[in-house]
Formats: sequence, C-alpha cells, structure tokens
Amino acid sequence: MSTRNDGRTADQLRPVTFQRGFAANSPGSVLVSAGNTVVLCTASVSDDVPPWMAGKGKGWVTAEYNMLPGSTSPRKPRDRKKVDGRTTEIQRLIGRSLRAVVDQAKLGERMVTVDCDVLRADGGTRTASITGAYVALYDALLSCEDLAPDGAWPLVDSVAAVSAGVVGGEVLLDLDYSEDSTAEVDMNVVMTGGGQFIEVQGTGEGGTFTAAQLQGLLSSAESGIALLTEKQRQAIKES
Amino acid sequence: MSTRNDGRTADQLRPVTFQRGFAANSPGSVLVSAGNTVVLCTASVSDDVPPWMAGKGKGWVTAEYNMLPGSTSPRKPRDRKKVDGRTTEIQRLIGRSLRAVVDQAKLGERMVTVDCDVLRADGGTRTASITGAYVALYDALLSCEDLAPDGAWPLVDSVAAVSAGVVGGEVLLDLDYSEDSTAEVDMNVVMTGGGQFIEVQGTGEGGTFTAAQLQGLLSSAESGIALLTEKQRQAIKES
Amino acid sequence: MSTRNDGRTADQLRPVTFQRGFAANSPGSVLVSAGNTVVLCTASVSDDVPPWMAGKGKGWVTAEYNMLPGSTSPRKPRDRKKVDGRTTEIQRLIGRSLRAVVDQAKLGERMVTVDCDVLRADGGTRTASITGAYVALYDALLSCEDLAPDGAWPLVDSVAAVSAGVVGGEVLLDLDYSEDSTAEVDMNVVMTGGGQFIEVQGTGEGGTFTAAQLQGLLSSAESGIALLTEKQRQAIKES
Amino acid sequence: MSTRNDGRTADQLRPVTFQRGFAANSPGSVLVSAGNTVVLCTASVSDDVPPWMAGKGKGWVTAEYNMLPGSTSPRKPRDRKKVDGRTTEIQRLIGRSLRAVVDQAKLGERMVTVDCDVLRADGGTRTASITGAYVALYDALLSCEDLAPDGAWPLVDSVAAVSAGVVGGEVLLDLDYSEDSTAEVDMNVVMTGGGQFIEVQGTGEGGTFTAAQLQGLLSSAESGIALLTEKQRQAIKES
Amino acid sequence: MSTRNDGRTADQLRPVTFQRGFAANSPGSVLVSAGNTVVLCTASVSDDVPPWMAGKGKGWVTAEYNMLPGSTSPRKPRDRKKVDGRTTEIQRLIGRSLRAVVDQAKLGERMVTVDCDVLRADGGTRTASITGAYVALYDALLSCEDLAPDGAWPLVDSVAAVSAGVVGGEVLLDLDYSEDSTAEVDMNVVMTGGGQFIEVQGTGEGGTFTAAQLQGLLSSAESGIALLTEKQRQAIKES
Amino acid sequence: MSTRNDGRTADQLRPVTFQRGFAANSPGSVLVSAGNTVVLCTASVSDDVPPWMAGKGKGWVTAEYNMLPGSTSPRKPRDRKKVDGRTTEIQRLIGRSLRAVVDQAKLGERMVTVDCDVLRADGGTRTASITGAYVALYDALLSCEDLAPDGAWPLVDSVAAVSAGVVGGEVLLDLDYSEDSTAEVDMNVVMTGGGQFIEVQGTGEGGTFTAAQLQGLLSSAESGIALLTEKQRQAIKES
Repeated sequence: MSTRNDGRTADQLRPVTFQRGFAANSPGSVLVSAGNTVVLCTASVSDDVPPWMAGKGKGWVTAEYNMLPGSTSPRKPRDRKKVDGRTTEIQRLIGRSLRAVVDQAKLGERMVTVDCDVLRADGGTRTASITGAYVALYDALLSCEDLAPDGAWPLVDSVAAVSAGVVGGEVLLDLDYSEDSTAEVDMNVVMTGGGQFIEVQGTGEGGTFTAAQLQGLLSSAESGIALLTEKQRQAIKES
Repeated sequence: MSTRNDGRTADQLRPVTFQRGFAANSPGSVLVSAGNTVVLCTASVSDDVPPWMAGKGKGWVTAEYNMLPGSTSPRKPRDRKKVDGRTTEIQRLIGRSLRAVVDQAKLGERMVTVDCDVLRADGGTRTASITGAYVALYDALLSCEDLAPDGAWPLVDSVAAVSAGVVGGEVLLDLDYSEDSTAEVDMNVVMTGGGQFIEVQGTGEGGTFTAAQLQGLLSSAESGIALLTEKQRQAIKES
Repeated sequence: MSTRNDGRTADQLRPVTFQRGFAANSPGSVLVSAGNTVVLCTASVSDDVPPWMAGKGKGWVTAEYNMLPGSTSPRKPRDRKKVDGRTTEIQRLIGRSLRAVVDQAKLGERMVTVDCDVLRADGGTRTASITGAYVALYDALLSCEDLAPDGAWPLVDSVAAVSAGVVGGEVLLDLDYSEDSTAEVDMNVVMTGGGQFIEVQGTGEGGTFTAAQLQGLLSSAESGIALLTEKQRQAIKES
Repeated sequence: MSTRNDGRTADQLRPVTFQRGFAANSPGSVLVSAGNTVVLCTASVSDDVPPWMAGKGKGWVTAEYNMLPGSTSPRKPRDRKKVDGRTTEIQRLIGRSLRAVVDQAKLGERMVTVDCDVLRADGGTRTASITGAYVALYDALLSCEDLAPDGAWPLVDSVAAVSAGVVGGEVLLDLDYSEDSTAEVDMNVVMTGGGQFIEVQGTGEGGTFTAAQLQGLLSSAESGIALLTEKQRQAIKES
Repeated sequence: MSTRNDGRTADQLRPVTFQRGFAANSPGSVLVSAGNTVVLCTASVSDDVPPWMAGKGKGWVTAEYNMLPGSTSPRKPRDRKKVDGRTTEIQRLIGRSLRAVVDQAKLGERMVTVDCDVLRADGGTRTASITGAYVALYDALLSCEDLAPDGAWPLVDSVAAVSAGVVGGEVLLDLDYSEDSTAEVDMNVVMTGGGQFIEVQGTGEGGTFTAAQLQGLLSSAESGIALLTEKQRQAIKES
Repeated sequence: MSTRNDGRTADQLRPVTFQRGFAANSPGSVLVSAGNTVVLCTASVSDDVPPWMAGKGKGWVTAEYNMLPGSTSPRKPRDRKKVDGRTTEIQRLIGRSLRAVVDQAKLGERMVTVDCDVLRADGGTRTASITGAYVALYDALLSCEDLAPDGAWPLVDSVAAVSAGVVGGEVLLDLDYSEDSTAEVDMNVVMTGGGQFIEVQGTGEGGTFTAAQLQGLLSSAESGIALLTEKQRQAIKES
C-alpha cells in the first residue's frame, strides 16, 4: 500500500476543525476546515417559507454553495449570470442532506438558508460543506427562542459527509485535490450520526468500477463519517 | 409481497421498445419507450469539438435532456430563460454515462450531441434516456463512413440504466410515476453491458435508508440492466 | 411547367396525416405530418387565465412553438437562454390564428396552451403547426366536461394554414425545404374552414414581387386550405 | 362614409415630414413624422460585416427598432433584459425591407445599422420607421466616399411603407392609434418606389376578413405608398 | 491660459437651451441641449409607487438614462441584455439628485419616472440630463391637478449639474467630448438652486489630483451651476 | 460633542487589522477588518490581459466586490442573475483606485484581479475593501518572479480609503452601520499614501450639504487616510 502525499494512510481523514461564531452577523456562522479545504457556513433564519409551503405549519431548510474566485488557482470566475451545473448539483445535495435530519413540523413555519462559501478549495468541498452546514444549522436553531435541544428541537439526528475514491486501483478516503483529479472513481456519501444512509453518489470518471470496488468505497466512507460525527459532537459541546 | 398497480412483480421491468429511425433528420433517431414513458433520442454528429479539445485528435460526446411541456399534466413550462437544476443534473449524467463506453481517440476529432426529449413522462425518464441514447449513438456512429462495428469502432461496450426504489419498505425495480412519487428511497444505476458500474445515485427522499436496503437496491438494478442490455442488442441487430 | 422534385404539380399539397392521442399525457395530443414535416401538437387546459383577464368570465388560448434540435441537420441548438426572433414570430402567429376561431366567453375562465414541437422539419413547419394545433385544441376542449360540440362549444369555425411561394418565377403550393430555400417570394396564409382570411404574410426574400404574383399566391393558398379543412374534418370524425 | 377624427378621408395619408441631419453624430440621421408619430432614424456605417458574410465582398444592412419609454402614455418600460416579441418582429421587417432595395455586392464589405427610435407613438410606427429609414440609409451611403447616386450606388430602388385597416367595416389608410386600437383588420404593406411588393402582412385582430376586404386594403395601401415615395424624393432632393 | 477649441474661456459654459413639450406624449417632455450634447428628458407620472413605499402616503421619483445607438460614432450597441455599469451609475445619480429637491409627502402616493435618452453625445451627458430632468419633472408635476407651484407643490428647490475637469493642468468648466477624453481629473457636481451641494464626484482618470485642484474644480462648478439655475428659471417662466 | 456608540471621538478610526496569507490559494490573500467589518481580499495574477490591451506591453488591474449572503442580517440574496447597481459602482471604484497607483508599463502584460468578498458588514465595506485590496495587490506582485519592491516594481504609491459623514449635523469619521444609516451626508474618499486625491464622492442622502460641511468632511477623511496608510506600511513590513 502506497503512502499518500500528505502521509495519511488509505482510510485516514484529514484534520477537521470547526470555528463557530466566525465573523458572525448570522445566527449560525461556522468556519469548517478539512485539511486545506476551508468553507464558511452561515445559517440565516427568516419567517418567509416558500409560497408552496405557506400555511402548512411546516418549515423548510435550503442551501446555497459557492466557490469564492480566490479559493482556487487559477482564479474561478464568479457565477454572476447563471449558476453552473456543478454548483446547482452541489447545493441541491446539501439542502437534501440537511432536510433529512430536520422534522419540518417541529421547525415551525420558518425558513433556514445555509450558505456554504468555499474560501479555499483542496478537494472535498461539498462534503466539508455538509459537515459544517450541520453545525451552522444547529447554532441557528439554538438562536430561535422557542427551540432548544432539550425541548422542542427539530433536529432528529446529525448529518456528515465524506468522499472516497479509487486512485491507482486503491480505495482512498477523503481525497484531496491532487488525488481527486487523478481518481478513476469518485464517491460522495452522506450519512446520519445514527449510521443511516442519506445519499450515495458514485461516478466512474471516464471509466467504470466493479462491484467489489463499490463495496470498498462504501465501507471506507462509513467509518470516516463515524469519526466526523464524533468531531461535530465535540464542537457543539464546546459552546 | 404486494402486487404493483400494473401487475408487475417487485423485480420486473416495464415493457421496453426501441423504434429506430423515427422522424429522422438526424443520423441517430430512436423513440424509446419503457411502459408509458416515451423519449425521443436523436444523435447528431459534427466536426466541431469543444475549444478545449481541439487539435488533440480526440472526440467528445455530450447530451441534452428536456421534457416537452405536454409530456406531463399539468403542463411543464419550458426552460427558455434558464435550465433548471434537475435538468442540468440529468443531462450531465447522460453525457458521463455515454462517454464511459466511448474510446475518444477512436472517435476521432468529432462531436456527437445526443438529445433526449421526453414526449411522455411516467417515471424513469432519465434512465430510459440513457438506455435509448446508447442506441441513437450507435446509429449515429454507423452513419460515419470511416467507422464500423467490425472495424474502427469507438464503442467499447454498451450502456443502460434503470431505477429502483424503496416503496412501503419494499425494494421495487423500474418505478413508474405513481411509485416514484411515494418512494422513501430512489436509486438510479448505470452499468455497462459487461456488468461494470458507471454511476450509482441513491437518495433518501426526505428520509434515510439502511445498508441492507442499499444492497437490495443495487442487486435489483443489476439484474434489470442485464435484461435491458439484451433488449438493446436485439434492437441493434434488427437494422 | 416543371415537375417538382417529389413529383407534385404546382398546386398540389403534400400528403397530410393526423395521429390523435399520440404519447398522450395531455388532453389534446396530435402528431401531424405534411410530407416529411412532423410536428407534435399538444393542448393543455388550466384554470389560470393571465392576470389581465382574471374575473372577466373569458378564456384565453396561447401557443408555443419549438424545433427539437434533431429535427434538422445540422442540429439546431436549443433556445435555452432566449427565444430567437423567428420562434417568437411563429408562436405569436399560431396563437392569433387559434384565437380567431374561439369564442372567449363560451370558453369560460380557462386557459388552453397549445405546444407545437417540430420533430422533423422539411418546410412549412409553422403552417403544419397551425393545422395540427386546431385538432389538438379540439380534442382538449372535448375533454372539458362542460363543453361539447353539440352543446356549449367555444369553436366558431376551424382553422388551417398553408404556404405558397414563387420559385423560379412559378407559383408553387406547400413548399418543402428545398423549394423554400430557393423561393423568391414566401407566403403564409391562414384561413377559417368557412373561407375567411385570418392572416396573410407575404415576403420577398431578398427580392420583390408583382401584383399579379400576389394574386396567384393567394388563390393557390385558398384552394390548398380548402383541402386541409376537409382532412381536419375527417380526422376529427374518426375519434 | 364617415369622417375620421382628424378630418381625413378614408384614403388620405397623415402629413409626412423628414428632418435630415437631426442631432447628427451618425452619417444618416432623419427625424420622420407622420401626423403625431415621430421616429428618429439613424444609420451608422462600419467595416465589420457579420462573421457569416466575411470575405464575400458583400455588405449587409440591419435594423433595430425601439420605443422610448416616454413615447406613449402610460410609460412603456424599457427592453433591458430581453427584447419583446413585437419589437423583434418589427426590426426584422425593417431590415428585410431595406435589404430588398440594396445591391449587396455594390455596397461592398461594409455593414449599415439603421436604428429606429420612436420618440412619439400615434399608430403606424413600424411603417414610418421604414419610410424614414430609407432616407437615413440614403444619407449614410452618401457619406461613403466611394459611393455616389450617379456612380457606384448600392440602392436599386426606394422603399416606403404604410398601414391600412378595416375599422367599422370600412377600409381606412394610415391608421392613427385611436383607429388602430379599434380596427378589425390591420395590414402593413411595404413596396418599392417602382411599385413592386416587398412585404404584405394582414392580420384579423380577433376576427377574420373577406377576400374583397383584402383587395380593398391592398389597393388603398398601394396608392398611399406612391405618395410617400414622392415625398421621399422631394426630401432627398433638398439636401 | 489657452483658448478652448470652441473659443470658450476656461470657466465658460456651452450654450444651453430647453425645448419644452417636444414630441410630447408624456406630461413632461424637454429637449435639453448643452452645446452639441442633446438629451430628451421625459417625465411620466403613475399611481404605482414601489411595493416598499405603498401605504405610507409618500411618493417616489426615479430615473433611467440611456444613450441612443446613433448618439455617438462609432455606434453604441443597445443595452438589451443587461445594463452596463456606467449607465447604472448615471441613472442612480440622476434619481438621487431629483429626490433631493422633492418633498415626498407633498408629492403624495405617486411615482414619477424621468427618462433621459441621449440623442447626441458630446460630453456632459449626465449633467445635461440632470439639468433637463428637473424641467421635465417640473412640467410633469404641473400636469397633476392637485399640485401647483403656488399651492401644494413638492419641489422645495431646483437642481442643476455641471462637469469640470483638469485638462493639461488647467481647470476647465463644462467639458466637451474632446476635452473630457484627455482630462486628468473629471468632476461632476450637482447643486440646488439655493447653492447647497447634493453630490460631488471627482475622479482621477488614471492619475491623482491635489487639494488645490480639488478646490478649483469645486469653485468653477459652483459658478456654472448658478448660471444654469438662471437658465432653468427663464425656461419655466416662458410656459 | 456627543460620544459615538462605540466610544470613539468624532475623528477617530475603528481598529484596523490585516491578516496576510489567510486561507491562501491566491498569491495575495488578505483578511482586513475595520471594527466589525471584515473583508477577504484576494489577488490573482494571469497572463491574459483584456483583448483591447493585448500586444501593448501593458498590464491591467481590475476588481470585483461581493457581499456574502451571511454578512448581513437579514440575509442578502446572491447576485446570481445580474449584478446590482450598488455592487457595480463599488467594484468600478475599487478598480480605478488601484490602477491609480499602478504603472501599467512596469506591470507588463499581465492581469491582476482583486476580489473583495465581504464576510461581515458593519459600514464602510467599500473603503475597507480598497484599503485591504492594496495589501493583497502588493502581495500578489511580490509573488511575480520578475518584480520586486527594490527593483522593477509597478506600484508608484500606496492607496487607502475611508468614509466620513454628517450625522445629526456633526462630521464623523469612519461610520459604522448604525451611523451610516442615519447620516445626512455620506462621503467616500480615496487617497494615495503621498496625500494626493484619487476619488471624492459625497452624496446628500435625501438631503443637501453646505460648502463648510464639504470642507469638514474632506479634512477629516484626509487625516484618517494618513493613519490607514501607516497601518498598511506596518502590515507589509511584517512579512
């Protein structure tokens, strides 16, 4: 088994940190980092639910994802005329992932928008966004006077995500950019803290993969998410 | 085990047909139907590859997906100002799936665009699009004078796709619209004729799923795709 | 007088067929063909009239026109950012033509949208669209429980359309693409089944035309429309 | 026969004036008025022909049409995001009309853009635009050193346009806004100074028209255009 | 001190004229000229205030600015897809300048839109627009039956604007295009008839300026605006 | 003289910090804060100058400005379809300000894009952006191998900016959001480290200001910028 360029073993996560209350004008504002990938997740709460939900006594959680131009080199132009396909896919994924752990009735008729702005990109920005967005969502809900973790609380579980891939025939966990750009298969897995699947997306990047590789990727991701869940719990406890 | 509303068993596909050369101004023009879902797949060939590929001696295959307004009731408004997120995700999936079985060097510096226009929607439009698009792509390549299945031929395998889902706790293959709209989990699987995976996308629709359910879905989809591959072979043989 | 490339005489229509209920999720769904030109016309009914008509007890009929990318060779790019000028002109013409035979008060406060999607283009797509759209509109109105041809019925007449042109100095009826692309004058005429004019559009394509040619074009179109009206009546009778 | 609200007879034009060189930064700049309708027509010349014409030694003439917000009451919002369908139709008509009298080879590889901006609208803005645009085009060509009316000259004829309509069952020439808004039939006719037709567009506005009415409209327009042609000749002579 | 290319002294304005009621379908319609710069300012009144102002008993004044394509040479393409940055800046400036002299409560719940369309551009189009827009606004308010200069009148002062600049090290007032395009510093000043400042915008065009130059520019602009105010008073008196 | 809500005197700046190399994938990446206003300024260098500058041996500096949705409460929607007027004005101002201290010839044929993304907004975001952008630009130029502050160096001076305003009749320096939203006059001043003016923008917010107030604002801003210049020098020295 080859050593990875940052010395990690095949099934090892990059270091993860959560900085809650970063540059905060929003009730949830979390700077999450996974290795050199850095994402600012802010969660805003409003009383306006989308028109098709009004009057049902239920709430909604949605997400937006964006890479700042300076988060990559060469610079990434802004999406100012239209949102590109990749961005749309990612923000739909983040929104679905968060909603899977939210009890909409307990949330009440309010709307939470979670913004994930990538400040520095080094692979795994969508999964870091989900993992950080959960903490930002948690903090935003804490700020609502009628909600509390030990009272009425709309979060039924936590949610975290990680990537895995096949690189040079080997299954690796939590790919950085240099690994991701040479991967034969790329998989993103989203799971609850309780170990249920929310989303599995595996893609042969210009190639295909076997049933055995599929099982290896799922298994590696599963153990990575268990660890991320633990990190989220610690971060939230520290408040 | 409950019977499905059209009398199918849990692991049974809907009837599939391919009408090659339908309303043909394009070299590949296939009307594919899977039950009541009907998609017109046309494949056009041009000499213009995208700018970033020019001069490399390689070709490119891309896809566009669209639902005609009258394909559903109530009518679906046209995407005339911007393409919605779901459409973008689907057409990117179709393009990736086709490229996974194309040898770009053997294709030569040409561009094939496969258009999948849904004439009637009853669930599974994206997987029917992929399954039909392969046949349209095959026919379009047949029309290129320098290419032939028994000579220089850029297709290294066939590709087909199917959906599976968990409905009322049970794993069902090839969901129709009524099943899809009540499914707890929705999965789309794309595989080669040779049995390799190209794409696995499983989503908890407002819920989550267990590892056991994930395995059941993969297994059901795998057998469904084997049958679709056989149908594609027959359709192509008839030309 | 020269023979035309498909053997027709100067004042002869191409064969016309109507396939009602084609791939039907909409109450009106008609596949119309005029020679090699094939258009799918679907008519959808909703209770929402445009804001400026609300509360007046009157209905509205509107139309959209679109050429599928594979309907021509080379492929026609989709109108996904803006609708081009030609498309806008054509769909406004189709809408006006249909409204000319609709009694808006008898229609009641409902909106019918007729979509004309060209599956194969070989000249005369706009006139085939109008001729087919009338049949789709008829079928959609049949599906409304409170309307019936022998009771309250908003259609005061039928409507059909045909092109005529001057090619090589000669007046020809119902131009196909090869004729249309070399025509000196191009005219589209829309008339009711009762023989009234709804629209006359004659254009010198990079040239001009005499008063005598104008009269010849009008006369040829008039007789062509009489025949199309008869075909529409037969198609509707067969239901 | 009823008198019209400004005292005109049924076949009488409104007063027409041409003010050449108005607020001129462009080589052709003509303020045309027809009654209370006022249009500023400016013609600009550049060396850039459209890409599809480059290298053929031929020129191109195109037109844009626009109503200033204050030209009507209530104010007309600007077309700043997209161009509405009516505007598109009109500017395509103006462009075709001008090109019908231009010898593209004699024009040489240059592009003339004629802008028709309506300063005050009282019916007939598209026909006044065509009639004025011809004079602006004439002046712009005069400014080209290698062209001259008695030498190499790309204009093979003049072009003018007028509207006619059926109001209260009567055929009227050159409708003002109050007449136009109550017309049963609206027709626009474009002809050369030599009496050839360029364009005939007749529309039943929510109704239909007979063959006899069609002939009456054509005949009235024909005589109106003959008079407008004479006015254009006088205006050009005065330079 | 050098003489300017049109013979003016450094602190001399170009000739200014106001033609009220020009091509008028709007209640305020003023053709303002400053030398060769010509702008059509029209003011329209409606009962619809913006949503965020509704029900407050106050009115709103807004402005739009546009250069006609033929106002410059070479031709300026139209802003039909998006409004460019310069246009946005200018129309926001015009709107702010007018609102500074309007008592919104006395205006009552109505909205005045002032359109400034440049017919000919020779420098100073934004300042000429402001100076002319005030007269158009005045006329539009005159047309409101419940308002009168000697009764309830929402205008608390007049407003006018002028440019000044540093050209070749010298402070010049009211730059024409040839001066503007070589200026080291460009300043626009907006003031009330009573001598208060509304807006000061000074920009080093690719360079910088000293505190002494800044004072010289302010002083020159101040005296120019006093003269423009006098011209506005005369123009309004003549009605 | 009243005390300000954060205890500052009228002519006192908020605390300013520069964090160089923050989340750095770009050669210049500076987190600047002025009180609670926090802006991430990143500077990217590319070899592509705009088309109109190609081949002249000169470089270009441009800027983009953006507020992250979570930087304010309530959340600010993203500019994903069009850029609003305020954003356009600000980013044009930042670009002009930077270019005023750049020797384009010494920069050589390269393009620097400075992105100013506001992470937290509390007034003065545009002036903090300029002050931070200078440091990011400095660092990006340092990363170019052929440039050095003691060799070929394109920066001819430093640039910094500050706001000043009239609040309750009193001139205050460096307004925070609560002050800015009640200010009668708002002024932004951009100056070089050497004390030259680059830009002066003073606006009566719904009101007007006297010549004396104008002088007070200029004087207060001048002293504030001298202090900011000193802070920039210290930050750059620390590298």
